[in-house]
Amino acid sequence: MDERAFLNALRTLPLHLGAAGLTDDTAMLAGMVVTTDTMVEGVHFLPSDPADDVAWRLVATNLSDLAAKGALVEGVLLNYPLSEVAWDGAFLRGFRAVLAQYDAPLLGGDTVSLPPGAPRVLTLTAFGADAAAPPRSGARAGDALWVTGTIGDAGPGLAIARSNQARDADEAWLLARFRRPTPRLVEGRVLAPYVRAMMDVSDGLLIDAARMAEASGLAVTVDLASVPLSVPARRYGSTPLAAATAGDDYELLFAAPADWIPPVAATRVGAFAPGRGLTLVDDGAPVPLPAHLGYQHNA
Amino acid sequence: MDERAFLNALRTLPLHLGAAGLTDDTAMLAGMVVTTDTMVEGVHFLPSDPADDVAWRLVATNLSDLAAKGALVEGVLLNYPLSEVAWDGAFLRGFRAVLAQYDAPLLGGDTVSLPPGAPRVLTLTAFGADAAAPPRSGARAGDALWVTGTIGDAGPGLAIARSNQARDADEAWLLARFRRPTPRLVEGRVLAPYVRAMMDVSDGLLIDAARMAEASGLAVTVDLASVPLSVPARRYGSTPLAAATAGDDYELLFAAPADWIPPVAATRVGAFAPGRGLTLVDDGAPVPLPAHLGYQHNA
Repeated sequence: MDERAFLNALRTLPLHLGAAGLTDDTAMLAGMVVTTDTMVEGVHFLPSDPADDVAWRLVATNLSDLAAKGALVEGVLLNYPLSEVAWDGAFLRGFRAVLAQYDAPLLGGDTVSLPPGAPRVLTLTAFGADAAAPPRSGARAGDALWVTGTIGDAGPGLAIARSNQARDADEAWLLARFRRPTPRLVEGRVLAPYVRAMMDVSDGLLIDAARMAEASGLAVTVDLASVPLSVPARRYGSTPLAAATAGDDYELLFAAPADWIPPVAATRVGAFAPGRGLTLVDDGAPVPLPAHLGYQHNA
Repeated sequence: MDERAFLNALRTLPLHLGAAGLTDDTAMLAGMVVTTDTMVEGVHFLPSDPADDVAWRLVATNLSDLAAKGALVEGVLLNYPLSEVAWDGAFLRGFRAVLAQYDAPLLGGDTVSLPPGAPRVLTLTAFGADAAAPPRSGARAGDALWVTGTIGDAGPGLAIARSNQARDADEAWLLARFRRPTPRLVEGRVLAPYVRAMMDVSDGLLIDAARMAEASGLAVTVDLASVPLSVPARRYGSTPLAAATAGDDYELLFAAPADWIPPVAATRVGAFAPGRGLTLVDDGAPVPLPAHLGYQHNA
């Protein structure tokens, strides 16, 4: 079953009020933000990825969802498949490092055994407190669309991970952007009380912008000329279109009134208007939409 | 790495106060009980188990942890690997049924794809409210050890599931005890304010009794003659020792003052005393401990 059909079926179940109709990456429970993500070996990470980096990425991607709500990190649950001593030991080192980096205490979890040869499947659940929790559906016509940091680093980073080797400092930096993403917790905390809508860019700038517009009942235009590429990504040969359709960047995407200047490092990449759908322009000139706007599960 | 070594390593990480040092099946967060369990195809359930029963068991085993805390069910998160339409559809039917049965609304979750041929790995996280939350460490010397329901049904049920066929009504009942366990939510709710220690019997009566004794800093004696076997289990040929060392029953095991009679259907199976370790007797006469007290991951 594809993800959309499964989600539509889930939406017919009795839902918790805090589930917000399963329209968001997070739920609200007892005043806490709750988010959970599963990573599968061979799907979300490579068998060759170092286990400490897998731990980092598993935690960081969940904390990114908390960042998009402006939450303080409260704690995490880990569901972990036990395997070789070396891999598990390296995972624990990375897990310790990322929990320390973001002041995320461990709440509990579960360990399991897998059948021999089965790909690892890891789940993390993260809890955040005191969140202003802007929805992804709150953009208004006339709002500007902004994104933090640079976009399109993790895409080349994944390609470099597949080649098993970073050949220079640029590639090492891009690889780290894929393997050790930075959840924008400080930026999210600063932005959340002021922005109208916010989410993290997990599947790609275009697809996530389109999702924010759809949730808000609006049209959105993204200007490729304004997509913030990093210097290493430019030198690697990446293009604004490639950057805007690659996933795994974990920057924050947000909507704010057109005259508001965000108090964090961010780039204005588009605008919302009445209507529906995504329009792409390059320095104002219309550009046809690519066949794939980003990453979609089972689609 | 084995489970014990991994847990010991996790205990050296920064822990949330609600993690209680990772000594319990549940954590406390913002006044809620939190528990999470992962089930792996080929380890925790059989590839031949019907998907609707897998959904039931996934939810029921987590709710059993809430029952042991005396909690009201608040909601669940599901981490689900998408696969064939027929399996996913059957899973959704069972998921709907078990959520409805126990008034458990869905809070959210995550869906992923697995590589072709990979065993399914499913995670559920459950939240409970208003829990008296007796610890597993609260037993006192002189307390009696009690268990709800009957013990040793799921063991034969698993053997019947492996044979792919229940040959009579007894076997069908035992199979259902394995595939569709009953979380003792009402019993847990009634007992929790009064008992000194409580946990669910997931890995086996003997191993779980030994764990409660160890957590409480006490010795415990279990009398095999008092282990409550069901009529179908007796007719199937099960013995008290087999019943006491088989897992997956999801009954409640609890410690209470010797003169207290529980207000739910339960059987007194042992007693706590100063000291350490588990002693087994049969109608009062000493019995040697079996090599395996129950199910242990990677051990």
